[in-house]
Amino acid sequence: MMKKKEKDLHYIKMAVELATNGVKTGEGGPFGCVIVRGDEIVGKGNNRVTSTNDPTAHAEVVAIRDACKNVGHFQLDDCTIYTSCEPCPMCLGAIYWARPARIVFACTKKDAAAIQFDDQFIYDEIELPVSDRNIPTEQVGRDIAISVFELWASMDDKTEY
Amino acid sequence: MMKKKEKDLHYIKMAVELATNGVKTGEGGPFGCVIVRGDEIVGKGNNRVTSTNDPTAHAEVVAIRDACKNVGHFQLDDCTIYTSCEPCPMCLGAIYWARPARIVFACTKKDAAAIQFDDQFIYDEIELPVSDRNIPTEQVGRDIAISVFELWASMDDKTEY
Repeated sequence: MMKKKEKDLHYIKMAVELATNGVKTGEGGPFGCVIVRGDEIVGKGNNRVTSTNDPTAHAEVVAIRDACKNVGHFQLDDCTIYTSCEPCPMCLGAIYWARPARIVFACTKKDAAAIQFDDQFIYDEIELPVSDRNIPTEQVGRDIAISVFELWASMDDKTEY
Repeated sequence: MMKKKEKDLHYIKMAVELATNGVKTGEGGPFGCVIVRGDEIVGKGNNRVTSTNDPTAHAEVVAIRDACKNVGHFQLDDCTIYTSCEPCPMCLGAIYWARPARIVFACTKKDAAAIQFDDQFIYDEIELPVSDRNIPTEQVGRDIAISVFELWASMDDKTEY
């Protein structure tokens, strides 16, 4: 069994290889991700935004979807997410919903910004009140929509997540 | 042509119907989303987390993927996102990457928290320094990973997003 530091470097190298292959084959941006439980790789992904016309196909989201498919569950208990770059807010949210045990990243969002991936802009927007955001955002029809929350709350036979 | 307020309510009602159907058929949580360009619906979605074992299958992500497939592009210029509830950080991130013109939501994240969907926890975590987060997060191997950013920066024939 590898030591923790050695293991972390091993899987970060693998995430970087996925990123490099994805760039060379024109699949998308320079990002890769590997998801590991114990000594087993349960999911992998590289950015595929431009080749699949899917703005959500960041490396982490692709790897989470792959891992969840492989383990047959919507949570990634006891897993470590190895990603070649600090997750953007979308990917960080996806990671939190998947509830892994640990996150290891290599490059930072500052490094990403230096090659024109401005995750910081989205981090800044998330902290603003809805009324001050760059994309105009309005609340409409809460009185209509609350009905489906009431329906959900009243149900006994539901799968929570 | 419908007036703005009437149009907003129309599509919010449709998002709520998608949410309601999804709950009744056991596809997932009580959330729906419709994406509109002009007077055309370009994408739709409801939460499918538990039925597809995909923690990223929130209504907005499902609708964005559907819309991008339908319009054949990874950006949703001039579109409005109608969602039955204020987006969680993952979905807000996905929306920002898709770059629509406007967001309309109905219920708030407080309403979601009241039925045990604690998006607020993720909002709080995003604002914390990496070292203070609930999911242990470490940086490892930047010196290795920076190579793929340098490769990307050096390429002339790449599709940016």
